[in-house]
Amino acid sequence: MEALKKAIQERGNVLSDHVLKVDSFLNHQVDVELMAAIGTEFAKRFADEQITKVLTIESSGIAPSFMAAHYLESPLIFARKKKSLTMNDHVYVSQVYSFTKQETNDITVSKDFLQAGDRVLIIDDFLANGQAAKGLIEIVEQAGASVSGVGIVIEKSFQNGRKLLEEQGYRIESLARIAALSDGQVRFIEDRLTTTSTN
Amino acid sequence: MEALKKAIQERGNVLSDHVLKVDSFLNHQVDVELMAAIGTEFAKRFADEQITKVLTIESSGIAPSFMAAHYLESPLIFARKKKSLTMNDHVYVSQVYSFTKQETNDITVSKDFLQAGDRVLIIDDFLANGQAAKGLIEIVEQAGASVSGVGIVIEKSFQNGRKLLEEQGYRIESLARIAALSDGQVRFIEDRLTTTSTN
Repeated sequence: MEALKKAIQERGNVLSDHVLKVDSFLNHQVDVELMAAIGTEFAKRFADEQITKVLTIESSGIAPSFMAAHYLESPLIFARKKKSLTMNDHVYVSQVYSFTKQETNDITVSKDFLQAGDRVLIIDDFLANGQAAKGLIEIVEQAGASVSGVGIVIEKSFQNGRKLLEEQGYRIESLARIAALSDGQVRFIEDRLTTTSTN
Repeated sequence: MEALKKAIQERGNVLSDHVLKVDSFLNHQVDVELMAAIGTEFAKRFADEQITKVLTIESSGIAPSFMAAHYLESPLIFARKKKSLTMNDHVYVSQVYSFTKQETNDITVSKDFLQAGDRVLIIDDFLANGQAAKGLIEIVEQAGASVSGVGIVIEKSFQNGRKLLEEQGYRIESLARIAALSDGQVRFIEDRLTTTSTN
């Protein structure tokens, strides 16, 4: 998706060979127009899948999922990373290890909102090691529902997340696929070397 | 806002005299059409304020803010409740005590995204004791920016949040104002007693 790649090039920061900071448009300040275009693109790619629920994870998954759920005419569910006091034991739970934050979180979804028969589109901001997607898939399976696909905003294709999910037979649609991060530069898959600003 | 009041009546759960659970349409499963209508209503009410930034707090503030930022042609910023490893000390910080979760969180906004001269619309899902809004206002003040108003989805008017903010001179626009929660029922301000489902 060209508008997304352009945003990554021009507004992303490569902090290391593994870390791309996109808090200027995706996960802290949100470029709402870009997120709307991203959600619309997900809806288009999964238009034939009879999606009944869009499932993401708080917080950064919510904005890119919003228009996807709108066009797919489906509720959006965001998995919680920690139980709140008003959430009882009537929940599906899985564990997700975050390499960025170096911690394991329980992610939970209320049993009220996913049922057997649901066709679920999972959306997340990043695919790296695939741990968050794997956790969301486990929750869908606990509900006896089916995963119709996984939509990813930015895939770090040099990590093993896509491989892990494809081996399990899931369809992955990533809107930007990064082959490598090095020396402040982003190289996309099937694309020439491009430079990000380093401010 | 009638569609919101209807959702609260029909899909909310009164858990106690202080707790209204709205995770079926607002803060876990998200009714995207309702959130779009809510965001549109905020944009309409603050249309003359020359808003340059919409500021909310993760996670539940993101969905109701999305269309507000879209129509106000402004970026959306969501304050973080905990520092992440990729967020450095280049941040504004304030402390927010949550009565629901019984914990204090630092909320942070990167200094990159709020500047002196910004006219900020603050949006949050609930106004109860006003602690979250107060924390967001402090962050705007640290930036030397100005608060153009506070948009609230659901106000618990029986708690003192509105009073606290109005005493400081802020304009509050709440789309549903709850006078009381009791015996599984919601009573709105300037409205007759209405009943929520208790399933």
